[in-house]
Amino acid sequence: MARPLRIGLLGLGPVGMAVAKAIQDKDKVLERRIGAPLELRRVWTRTRGLPRSVDDSLLCYDVEEILSDPEIDLVVELLPGEHPAYEYVKRALLAGKHVVTGNKEVMAKHGPEILSLAAEKHVDISFEASVGGGIPVIGPFKLDLLANEIHRVRAIINGTTNFILTQMASHGSSFEDALAEAQALGYAEADPSKDVDGIDAMFKLTILGSLAFHMRVSPDDVYHEGISALAPADFRYARELGYAIKLLAIGEAEDGGVVLRVHPTLLRETEMLAKVDGVFNAVAVEGDLVGPILFYGRGAGGGPTSSAVVADIIDLAQRSLAGTAWVAPPAFEDTYSIRSMDDVRTGYYLRLLAYDRPGVFAQITRVLGEAEISIASVIQKENVVDGQPPVEYAEVVLMTHRTREATMQGAVRAIAALPSVFKIGSLIRVEE
Amino acid sequence: MARPLRIGLLGLGPVGMAVAKAIQDKDKVLERRIGAPLELRRVWTRTRGLPRSVDDSLLCYDVEEILSDPEIDLVVELLPGEHPAYEYVKRALLAGKHVVTGNKEVMAKHGPEILSLAAEKHVDISFEASVGGGIPVIGPFKLDLLANEIHRVRAIINGTTNFILTQMASHGSSFEDALAEAQALGYAEADPSKDVDGIDAMFKLTILGSLAFHMRVSPDDVYHEGISALAPADFRYARELGYAIKLLAIGEAEDGGVVLRVHPTLLRETEMLAKVDGVFNAVAVEGDLVGPILFYGRGAGGGPTSSAVVADIIDLAQRSLAGTAWVAPPAFEDTYSIRSMDDVRTGYYLRLLAYDRPGVFAQITRVLGEAEISIASVIQKENVVDGQPPVEYAEVVLMTHRTREATMQGAVRAIAALPSVFKIGSLIRVEE
Repeated sequence: MARPLRIGLLGLGPVGMAVAKAIQDKDKVLERRIGAPLELRRVWTRTRGLPRSVDDSLLCYDVEEILSDPEIDLVVELLPGEHPAYEYVKRALLAGKHVVTGNKEVMAKHGPEILSLAAEKHVDISFEASVGGGIPVIGPFKLDLLANEIHRVRAIINGTTNFILTQMASHGSSFEDALAEAQALGYAEADPSKDVDGIDAMFKLTILGSLAFHMRVSPDDVYHEGISALAPADFRYARELGYAIKLLAIGEAEDGGVVLRVHPTLLRETEMLAKVDGVFNAVAVEGDLVGPILFYGRGAGGGPTSSAVVADIIDLAQRSLAGTAWVAPPAFEDTYSIRSMDDVRTGYYLRLLAYDRPGVFAQITRVLGEAEISIASVIQKENVVDGQPPVEYAEVVLMTHRTREATMQGAVRAIAALPSVFKIGSLIRVEE
Repeated sequence: MARPLRIGLLGLGPVGMAVAKAIQDKDKVLERRIGAPLELRRVWTRTRGLPRSVDDSLLCYDVEEILSDPEIDLVVELLPGEHPAYEYVKRALLAGKHVVTGNKEVMAKHGPEILSLAAEKHVDISFEASVGGGIPVIGPFKLDLLANEIHRVRAIINGTTNFILTQMASHGSSFEDALAEAQALGYAEADPSKDVDGIDAMFKLTILGSLAFHMRVSPDDVYHEGISALAPADFRYARELGYAIKLLAIGEAEDGGVVLRVHPTLLRETEMLAKVDGVFNAVAVEGDLVGPILFYGRGAGGGPTSSAVVADIIDLAQRSLAGTAWVAPPAFEDTYSIRSMDDVRTGYYLRLLAYDRPGVFAQITRVLGEAEISIASVIQKENVVDGQPPVEYAEVVLMTHRTREATMQGAVRAIAALPSVFKIGSLIRVEE
């Protein structure tokens, strides 16, 4: 019998608890599938006295009992946020321990440094759980799709916002009401900003973009925009036009450049991604050989995320057993550079309120015409009452053909300055 | 520089051509990603003189030039059907060569024998391309989902039949017309029986079932039924009831037993699987940790299938480089036994033509009631003209709640024998 892989676990939140439980409850089946037992040797948590499914004798409150224990082979890091997770991951690697982490913020901000530190120490770092919960996402990029040049990645990788958008689309809820419901159900945190502002998705796209395009990506390279400005009217109009609204994380490669962006997006109802509802996640990838492909499942929660963490542990244990826990990571390729959001070419949905005067529509179309932006479709509704004191406006919704982001932003500023325009309601990018 | 992995390719159909092209055109990028070059050393084909994208000097017409060449490390087998592919795969393994195959029939019929032969010779056998084209399907079962107990697999794994069913659903086509269109587009073969009778899906489910439930499965263990008996009326009624009709390959584990079955299935329109249209494939899996998960993409064609074949080659090349090309395969677990189709419990859709006599519905419901089968919903349409000479009938459609297959089959025989019933139109299982 091979000797056990000895695991130190950092963090006992819902995912940490689920991982500890899986390692303990499934010990026999995992041992059979791996060929060696897993030993959960020590679990570090900051908060004492909570009810735990982990035996008291395994708990410790001094992280040195894990990081400085020479008998621990593998540190599983499941802490929230950047600190002290980043420092602990580095210390574990420096001590020659393998690391499995589910920490998207650490991997997004420090991925290249951590990968090169692991390579230097000839230890392994795995992070399947950092994006898409239990959906195999990292693995496919690292192996299954490796024969492909990836043109595009489009992903719904934040369950909280997808739940909110689904509620807004199906029940006509306001953003505030849908958010409150998400909070009541435990899908959103008390401070929901990381989710609703697109920051969580930005971290995850940093990781996906790096893998898909074989390049160094920092969160600063990713444009991000949240969902809090969306109104129930946008969902009604989108449906009328045959679209769903999703918070998409998009990475696209074109002419040697890659643009990475997170923002609300109109997506044709017939696309598989448009059908991903509630807290579910999906990652759609287009490769030169494989064509379009999509992975779908639960992107968060103890069970799904523990599925990914334990898969990483199994992989490491199997490779340890074969004597090759460490494999030289592929180098970054210098095929692409990061391109500015200004250069994105996409369609746009524009909703605005105008004083109901003859000629307003001519003025708007003249601005767009001068910018060489062509209109794909128009909806004009009367009798919208808005403002304080209430005034009656005409609501104008139009969709443009593909145009350059900077051009469109300039045109929208010019439209907002028209005397006949009361205000811009929404500007949402459209994926065709 | 590490020495190249030397590849002998068997078969130059669309997939073989795409694999040869990828290895040759992507040589630099693959070498960088692997850490060693791939060398396409010899390509065997039976048919001379066809236009090839492969250099003439690589072609051979005597298979011994590959199977008996001690310098070839890896045989990539991409031949159609069972013979001579099975014999060649065995010979390659016996000669100590690794094998990558896309051959579902060989793996379904001889998988356990081939896996144990590979283990005995300490060489590797990979078969990602045998199910779902370029969609990573085998990989997830072998690693990413390995921490899970799988409860259920439901898959659309035959693009030809999914195309035909999509045409029937969206254009009201007859089976014959939709098949003719599939043939005209090159999606169906001149002899379409392996696809439309469910045999191709049966082979693929044999492979998936074996991986999902960690057991030996033979094609004889898989119940299969094709799509040729479906009528346009079934698609109309299904839609009226809120369902799509798909040819599903289903594996379910319950109470120590596994049932594997391929048949047309009514699936709620709101399910992701119901939205998989045209030639696309999808595999939905439910695991105890991960919950529901789905993989979607093109299940056939040179490009997608070559993506999977080359991924298998990359994996092998990387492990060769690390000195661990061969890893002991996990043993079959004896958790489950194969259970008979008779014991399946599912819902049923029954369409029948009845002489429009008072009392016919009462007779039908009495038969069902005596068998303790409860009815979930009923549609009764008048004025259907059928038979020779034409007679006017009432078309009765009903859906039952879950009941045992054998019970339902008995009830349907009794209903068919009722004097007021002209004929049974369709009996289709329903997934809830």
